[in-house]
Order: sequence, then C-alpha cells, then structure tokens
Amino acid sequence: MFPISKEILEESLRRLDIPDITSATIRQINSLAWMLQEEAGEEMIHLELGNPGLPAEQVGIEAEIEALRSGVASKYPNIAGLPELTKNASEFVKAFLDVDVPPHCIVPTVGSMQASFTLLQLLKMRLPGKDTLLMLFPGFPAQRHQAKLLGINLEGFDIYNYRGKKLEAKLEEYFKTGRITAMLYSNPNNPAWTNLTDEELEIIGRLATKYDVIILEDLAYMGMDFRQDFGHPYEPPYISTVAKYTDNYILLISASKIFSYAGQRIAVVCMSKEVYERRYDYFEKFFEMPKFGDAYIYGVLYCCSSGATHSAQHGLAKMMGEAVAGRLNFVDHCSEYGRRGGLIKQLLADNGFELVYKYDGDREIADGFFLTASYGDMSGEELQKELLRHGVSTISLPSTGSRQQGVRITVSTVSDKEHFDLLGKRLKEFKQTH
Amino acid sequence: MFPISKEILEESLRRLDIPDITSATIRQINSLAWMLQEEAGEEMIHLELGNPGLPAEQVGIEAEIEALRSGVASKYPNIAGLPELTKNASEFVKAFLDVDVPPHCIVPTVGSMQASFTLLQLLKMRLPGKDTLLMLFPGFPAQRHQAKLLGINLEGFDIYNYRGKKLEAKLEEYFKTGRITAMLYSNPNNPAWTNLTDEELEIIGRLATKYDVIILEDLAYMGMDFRQDFGHPYEPPYISTVAKYTDNYILLISASKIFSYAGQRIAVVCMSKEVYERRYDYFEKFFEMPKFGDAYIYGVLYCCSSGATHSAQHGLAKMMGEAVAGRLNFVDHCSEYGRRGGLIKQLLADNGFELVYKYDGDREIADGFFLTASYGDMSGEELQKELLRHGVSTISLPSTGSRQQGVRITVSTVSDKEHFDLLGKRLKEFKQTH
Repeated sequence: MFPISKEILEESLRRLDIPDITSATIRQINSLAWMLQEEAGEEMIHLELGNPGLPAEQVGIEAEIEALRSGVASKYPNIAGLPELTKNASEFVKAFLDVDVPPHCIVPTVGSMQASFTLLQLLKMRLPGKDTLLMLFPGFPAQRHQAKLLGINLEGFDIYNYRGKKLEAKLEEYFKTGRITAMLYSNPNNPAWTNLTDEELEIIGRLATKYDVIILEDLAYMGMDFRQDFGHPYEPPYISTVAKYTDNYILLISASKIFSYAGQRIAVVCMSKEVYERRYDYFEKFFEMPKFGDAYIYGVLYCCSSGATHSAQHGLAKMMGEAVAGRLNFVDHCSEYGRRGGLIKQLLADNGFELVYKYDGDREIADGFFLTASYGDMSGEELQKELLRHGVSTISLPSTGSRQQGVRITVSTVSDKEHFDLLGKRLKEFKQTH
Repeated sequence: MFPISKEILEESLRRLDIPDITSATIRQINSLAWMLQEEAGEEMIHLELGNPGLPAEQVGIEAEIEALRSGVASKYPNIAGLPELTKNASEFVKAFLDVDVPPHCIVPTVGSMQASFTLLQLLKMRLPGKDTLLMLFPGFPAQRHQAKLLGINLEGFDIYNYRGKKLEAKLEEYFKTGRITAMLYSNPNNPAWTNLTDEELEIIGRLATKYDVIILEDLAYMGMDFRQDFGHPYEPPYISTVAKYTDNYILLISASKIFSYAGQRIAVVCMSKEVYERRYDYFEKFFEMPKFGDAYIYGVLYCCSSGATHSAQHGLAKMMGEAVAGRLNFVDHCSEYGRRGGLIKQLLADNGFELVYKYDGDREIADGFFLTASYGDMSGEELQKELLRHGVSTISLPSTGSRQQGVRITVSTVSDKEHFDLLGKRLKEFKQTH
C-alpha cells in the first residue's frame, strides 16, 4: 500500500545503485518506480517516462508493410535518404513551418537522438576554438549525456529568468566569447512546455548570424502548442521557428511524438542550404569533403549506422506526404495530450501544487505533453521522493538543468478516468501529510 | 563504349573531388562507376559495393509485419533489447558457434556499424593508457574511418605474411606495449575471404587473456566458409571463433548478410559474461555504472540512438529462432555466393589474373562473397583504374589496409549468365591490351 516508508525508499535506491536521485537517468527512475510498485503491491502512477501513449499513425504502418513486401529489407538504404522521404520532408517543412529546405539538405537519422549525437560530433570539429555547446535549460537530460560522452564542453542557463528581451544580453554574454559552436533547445520545451516567442526566436536568430553559432532546433513536439491550430498545411498560422530569423539553423524533426512512431526510430535532420553548403578547411583535410552537409552524411552518419531502417523511411515518407496533402492532421491527433495536461494541471492545483514554468511572454503556457510543478518550498529532490512514496513517479527539475525546485510530469501514459481518479486520490493523500 | 579513355577517367575523378582513388570511400567509387557508365553509354559491372544480392529471409519480413500490426511502432524498444531477441540470439550463438552467452549480455544495435562505433567509444575509455585499436588488415575500410572519427589510435598489420605460428610473435609485438585496448577483425575476412584457422584463433585468444586485450570478432559473414557445412544447429562442425579460446571477446552478428537483411539495419552485440560483468573505476565515475555491459547499453547505446528499430528486432528474433529450430538454413541460402565466387575466380584465372590471398594454413580459401585479384606487377591503383576504363568497377587493396597490390571484388551483385558473360568479355579485352 502507498504511502511506503522512507526506509523502503532509501533501501530501494541503494539496491539500484542510485546514490543521487537528481542525477539518475529517467530509465533508472523508471526501474525504481517499478520496484516500489512491487513493494507497495499497488499500481504506481507513471508520470516519468514519455512514451507516446497514442497509437502509431496507421498510414505509416501500412507504408512500411508495403515496402517490406516489395523487398526493401535486403537493400542498404541510400545513406543520403530515400528520395521520396527527403522530397516529402522538404514539403512538410514548407507546409507547416513556411520554410524552404531543399531535399538534398535533408537526411534521415535513427531518431533525433542519433541526429543530435552525430551533429554535435561534427559541430565540435568545424572551427578551432569553437568547442562549446550552449543548451537552453531546462532541457532533455539525454542531450547533456551526449555532450559529455562526446567530450564537447557544455554550458547552459535556465531560461526561467531570461524570457523576452532579457534573453538578448544573456545570450550575448555566451556568444561573444567566440567559443559557442552551436546552441540546442527543444521547442515546445522538454520539459517545461514553454514555447519561445517570436520575439525570442528573432533574438536567437540575429545573434546566431552575428556570432556564427549554429542553432539546433529540436522540434520533437512540433505543432503541439495547442493554443493555436497548426494542423493545416500551407495555411497560417505557421509554427514559429528560428529558421525565419537566421540561415544558421538545423531542424530536428522526429516521428516519435508527432506521429506516435517512437518504436521505429526514425527522424529527419533539415539543414539550411547555407549550413549544408558551407565549406570548412578542417573537413576538407579530415573527411576529404569540405562541405558541412557532405561531411555530415558521408563522413559521420555513414560511420555511425550506415543509415536508418529502410522500411521506416518509407513509413515516414508516407506520413509526411499525407500531412502535406491535408489528409493526416497530426496536430489534431496529438491534441489528446493537451486534454490530459489540462486535467492533470487541475488535479495539481486542487491539491496545493503550482506550475513552475507558467508563461510565454504575457500568455499562459499551453497544456501539453509535459508540465512542471512545485509544492510550497520543498526542494525538487524532496518532492520527487515524497511523491514516489505516495505512488506518483516523476523526475526532478534539477535533473533537467533547471535551477527551479519542482518536478517534471509527462502526461503521456495517463489516459483513462480510473487513472486520473487514482492520481487525484494520491495527490490528496500527499497534501494531507505535507 | 568501354574502354573509355584515360582522360575521361581523370576528368571524372576531378569532377567528383577524388584526389586519390585509393583513399576514396566505397561510396565515392560507386558514384564514379555510375558516372563512367553514363559516359560509356554501356553498363558497368559493379564489383565494388557489397549489397546482399539475395532476397531477405521471408520469415523475418512476416514477423516484422506482424509486429507492426500489433502496435510496436508507437512504443520505444527496450534499450536492452527485446527479450525474445536476446533469448533467441543466445540460443543462436550456442547452436552454431557452440558458445554460451547469456541473454542479458546480448543487445541489439543499428547494424554492426553502430556496434563497432559504439564499442570503440567505450573501449577507448576503459583503462588509462589502453588507447589503441589493433586491426588485422585487410579490413573493412569503414571501421578505419570509425576509429579516426572517434580519435582512437589505430594500428594494424597485413596478415598476408603472418599466418599460422608467425602470428604469435607479431601480435605479441603490439600487445606487450600495453597500449592495445581491443583488436578487431572480421572472419571470414572482409575483403580477403580468408578464415582464421583454429591454430590462429587459439593464439589470438591466449594472448588476449594474457595482455587484457578485448577481441571484437565481426561475424558479418558467419558460416560462409563453404568448405564445410555449418548450416545445422547443435551439430558439429561448429563455426570457429575466438570465444573458444578466451573470455575477452565480443561478437558482432549482423543480419545484413547472413539473412540478406541489410535494409533494416539490425544486428546483435554478444559480450562474454566476463566482459559484461567486469567493473571499471572510470565507468563508475563517468557513467555512475561500473560494469562494462551496463555502461555500454545505458551509457553509450542509449545516447547514440535510443535503441534499434522495434519491428526489425522482431524480425531478427524470428529469423534466429527459425535457424535454431533447424527450419531456416541460412548457410545454405548464402551458398549462392560461393557459386558466384567460383565462377568469377575461373573468369579471372582464364584471363591472367591471380588470387592475392590464397590460403588458410595449407588449404585453399573458400569461394564466397569477396575475392582479391592481382595482375602481373600492376599496382592496386593502376589495376583499379584500368579495370574501370574497361567497365569493371572494384576497389583497390591498399584502401583496405592491405600491403598487397591488387583489387577487391565482391560477387554479390553479379548473378545471371548475361553478366558473367559480359564480365568475361571485359576481362578478355583488358587482357588483350595489358
């Protein structure tokens, strides 16, 4: 029965070799949650792991099956991407972001995890002295691990205190050192679910051009700012992007969340034409290929996995094609996350919790895949542990690079009334003893 | 019409930015071959690119389709591998290599390309001073690029002059420096199609244990030494492997060639239990996970792509399961390469070419996926260029790390009488002018 005792929690942390819960990986937290569920003999509410939680888009599955039947399994995929995929992705970017990226500047990767890993590998090599990645925090913890594994210097700051015009001076502080080769953020933000405003994107873009910083914009949750309806191709409103304000951009578009396709590990990297075509002396020497895009595709991606699964490329090509044709409204399909986010936000408010990241400019943030919550003056670590004891598993904000005290919640795996009711009951029990 | 002039060849090399044909990637050679085909207005014989050239195993395709229909596309694959896959792979290794690897020591990767890339990443970190990879040459050129990109020191030697007992002193020369963290080779050899004898594998295994070197045995062409029939599970003869002679081994088993499944990018890494469980101080500090296997799966593989395509794991699980049950004789299916290799070897002999790598111990090598050929005292570079002019595309031996002069030929894409006849005609024309 939840709540379980502090002793059992601490003993479970020891058994899983987790000395510090705030630096544990999401996967370790997930294992811990399952262990505590066994101890309690009662179901844990899993708000820590962001599985899609919706069925995969059926047209993608059908396209994969057709491709498999037609014999693609025996043939190495073209390392530069299936022509149908790069063409459809180019149209997809035009239709929903109103941005022009030529097909040859687009390449499939084994999820956006491979995209950021391989891009960072190249970005740390491009110019002498440009050896540092700047991350906007909070951020996706795995990307911090990537930087560490690659031996690339990592700096970052919590955007909490630097929204709007305040962003400019803060960014310039980093950029003017000359050490920043690239800046990485996800928009909507993982995990704060904030969206950068156009004012902020303009600042980022302008400074990226001025200081030669390449912006990696991770669009894992593309279009899921449900305050507006971005679901219609070639029609405003278009999804905001830094690509409107600089040529120094690379967009990461993963099928995992927008098409609920995480199992097949497929994404595309979209380089601006300027990024692709730019020549570097060091790449000429190292790869015998001076252009960034060539060095990336044939020098780095080829080395890392010889391309992405053939049938999955067909699946993504089809889903993007259908979205561009207006026959697959992926934004509408994902709006279910907004509904769940709204319900959970209400349960939290009813039980004395507050949203941590609350505003974009002067607007309240959207309801969506993630939200962040604090409770009185409890630290993130304490709150995470106390919620775990009460049968609610989250991750702590400090583990995401945030300086705020609180926890991150993903709404993806809670879908039915029974679980919402159980969550409400658990939060109420928590409130009664805190 | 072939032959084309030397001027057109040199001009094409310039247009493709290939300053030195011996250091070009296989993919660049492939592009060059297509360009020359356009110039000649006649079909090129492609002996450079090792596409499987057989249809994918149908049971794998059916299993993928079933998995897709059951909904795996929306779910992140378990980073430690689908339980059914690791179980079947463990049995596969027992059935065909007669080696015991527990399922938890097996993990799927995005092809063996991802396996070697990610393993080298970890192997260069495991112990201070052990900073060098030793490769047996000739070898797979992409693996040399991987070492370069990872910044791991690479040493190697051509096994041509160090077969049998001579291997011991040569290996010890490298191992006793203490700098070698790992040694990598493919068996059967890519591209010489030699097979290490049990005498040689015993030497490698014994010295690996003595000097704490971890052996990466790439079994991309597992079982394709067609001089014996390895196609029957749990029955001798078993495929020779270094795993019989040391606990310091990691096996790479890719579906690409043995199941003609290159398109789906799926393989398994099989660590010996001793390799998996070994604890390293540096991994404890860096990953907060002291064990090699944990650091590999949760620290490195997770960072690189969050796992391998879900449906492809089901496909591989099924193919391995069927092979273990004796219902899928993959060795027999691949023996078609032996037939083609034999035909091409005869055409080469008829036209004055010689095999470069000819013997394993006192036996002639098998016919198979690759063969190596020389012509009089022509250099590898000259021979490759002259064959290209005559409509036959190969890669040069020096590009594979071999010190011998000659070219590497893959038999995978030449299958019908028409192409064998055309190859014969081209080689004859070559002979008449050289």
